[in-house]
Amino acid sequence: MDFYPVVIEKLIEEFAKLPGIGYKTAQRLTLHVLNLPQEEVREFAKALIDARGTIKYCSVCGNFTDKDPCAICSNPNRDKSIICVVEQPKDIIAMEKVREYNGLYHVLHGNISPMAGRGPGDIKLRELVSRMNGDVKEVIAATNPNIEGEATAMYISKILKPLGVKVTRIAHGIPVGGDLEYADEVTLSKAMEGRKEI
Amino acid sequence: MDFYPVVIEKLIEEFAKLPGIGYKTAQRLTLHVLNLPQEEVREFAKALIDARGTIKYCSVCGNFTDKDPCAICSNPNRDKSIICVVEQPKDIIAMEKVREYNGLYHVLHGNISPMAGRGPGDIKLRELVSRMNGDVKEVIAATNPNIEGEATAMYISKILKPLGVKVTRIAHGIPVGGDLEYADEVTLSKAMEGRKEI
Repeated sequence: MDFYPVVIEKLIEEFAKLPGIGYKTAQRLTLHVLNLPQEEVREFAKALIDARGTIKYCSVCGNFTDKDPCAICSNPNRDKSIICVVEQPKDIIAMEKVREYNGLYHVLHGNISPMAGRGPGDIKLRELVSRMNGDVKEVIAATNPNIEGEATAMYISKILKPLGVKVTRIAHGIPVGGDLEYADEVTLSKAMEGRKEI
Repeated sequence: MDFYPVVIEKLIEEFAKLPGIGYKTAQRLTLHVLNLPQEEVREFAKALIDARGTIKYCSVCGNFTDKDPCAICSNPNRDKSIICVVEQPKDIIAMEKVREYNGLYHVLHGNISPMAGRGPGDIKLRELVSRMNGDVKEVIAATNPNIEGEATAMYISKILKPLGVKVTRIAHGIPVGGDLEYADEVTLSKAMEGRKEI
């Protein structure tokens, strides 16, 4: 389409590259940006470059960080005997918001998915194994509760147990506030299986 | 929240300022950007600055343009006897896509809305009147089919008719492909009122 000047069309294209943003939304965002004060647009552009330019992965746990090792890995108050393994950095945020876990993390940056052709060598498993230095007593497999996540958790258990490390899996069950009626059969079955005496 | 490094939090904030983008989506977009090649992020930032820096309003019609007057106003093949008045630049895009209209445009950059305290002086009406140079035979009021758009169309008619200019309003009716059953009463009434012999 050549209805817009090239620079506008270019910005629409850039917005449309973002996940979940189609052409119509990209157009709306672009027209919004054109109506902003020039200073605000510069700040947005700077935030983009700063974030991408400053952020790297922690060489220990693989989380996003601006210094290496990251704030969690270098915090002397965190329990170094326990590592929670997650698929993505954003899972760490979810965990930290609960404010109950005080151990360390390890980001796999993916999961094992034979269907998608992702094997153990494609995620940060070697890095996880190399952290088993004797101090680590427990590894919590907090990968997602889907086929890939379960397979990944199983694999972690298989490779770490021989090293004498206890591997645990986060519990499955009915979400708090959820409705029994709407729970799927697998979740319900897991909830029954994991029942506890009260 | 201080779970993210400052530069990431800043970018999330910037995304969240955009219309229709909440914190969760902003977070998702930010994590996406962090995984892009640095070069692509720079290009996105450049597109933002280029678009906002280059684009101005056409001094004749008020449309977005990178040169003044805009491509439509300076096109010798367009019919200068007819001006289609719209509320926003994006309405011009909608019109141009139809590829049937060959006249000029005028962007009001808003509408008259006593409820929101926007009077005739707050939109580009004076600029419209100043374009009535004798060459203009017809002005099409293509403002939106809502209360504000209708009021604006009425006002345009009121101020231009005394100058000997024909003012027309785009037709209301059942959208093509629409279903009579789901048409609201006002639209249906307008469709009946505007019926034509076939």
